[in-house]
Amino acid sequence: MKLKVLWPGGTKSREIKKLQAFYIEKIRKLSKLELIETREARGIDERNRQKILKIEAEGLEKHLDRDYIICLSNKGKSIDSIKLAGILEKKAMSYPYPISFVVGGFLGLGSEILDRADFVLSLSSMTFSHELARIVLLEQIYRSLTIINGKNYAK
Amino acid sequence: MKLKVLWPGGTKSREIKKLQAFYIEKIRKLSKLELIETREARGIDERNRQKILKIEAEGLEKHLDRDYIICLSNKGKSIDSIKLAGILEKKAMSYPYPISFVVGGFLGLGSEILDRADFVLSLSSMTFSHELARIVLLEQIYRSLTIINGKNYAK
Repeated sequence: MKLKVLWPGGTKSREIKKLQAFYIEKIRKLSKLELIETREARGIDERNRQKILKIEAEGLEKHLDRDYIICLSNKGKSIDSIKLAGILEKKAMSYPYPISFVVGGFLGLGSEILDRADFVLSLSSMTFSHELARIVLLEQIYRSLTIINGKNYAK
Repeated sequence: MKLKVLWPGGTKSREIKKLQAFYIEKIRKLSKLELIETREARGIDERNRQKILKIEAEGLEKHLDRDYIICLSNKGKSIDSIKLAGILEKKAMSYPYPISFVVGGFLGLGSEILDRADFVLSLSSMTFSHELARIVLLEQIYRSLTIINGKNYAK
């Protein structure tokens, strides 16, 4: 399985960044994983929401080709971890291109990129900070891989 | 508002513990918060699930009196962050006892404690490790407090 995770800009919180590295290391023991930190729209007033989203969507799209694209959005579908593992396993067996998870910046993802998604996933009905969402996603990817591999992972 | 967070045993992951401390510090700028790490059932075979849950429920119950009890469980109700803030704000104004969040150990919470809950909250349809659930909960408490205080908090 070839996995990619894409998001705009590096993780600023030192604590979150350490936890991110922890999960990435665990994932890489079970699968190929490429982390791509794309262009972040900086220095633009937050009121220009559409402009920010467009710049970041363009940055993300540069790194997506025929990938199977899973975008994170609170307007997406809520599924359980078993179901996510099932989607990844099935896709990895039938589709020769990477499975790419796309997480938005602090304003989320623009429609340009959401429209390209093969699956739009909601992690929770609650709103997480975009940096915490990175962690929750990585933990779910790791959990999915342990489910696929039949490993025992901490509840 | 007097908040309490209870869970069995200390957080073992060093990375998660640091992030936990980060959110606790942020919460304490906006509210009183007591973190109580209760008795953890150790050295019991995981097959004795009911025994573990009972010991941990007893440990938790010792620290709950007339508290408004919010238990975390994947069988609970999914609400959004605005709704959670609304519950906390309303309860804090009308109820003179602490609002207590109770998080289970690696097997979750026993029925002894779930039956006492005033509200059973599900953070996600996905399964989080019990230590990551602590982080997600703390972030939601912090987010709720910023919503109640009308502060701007990172999306």
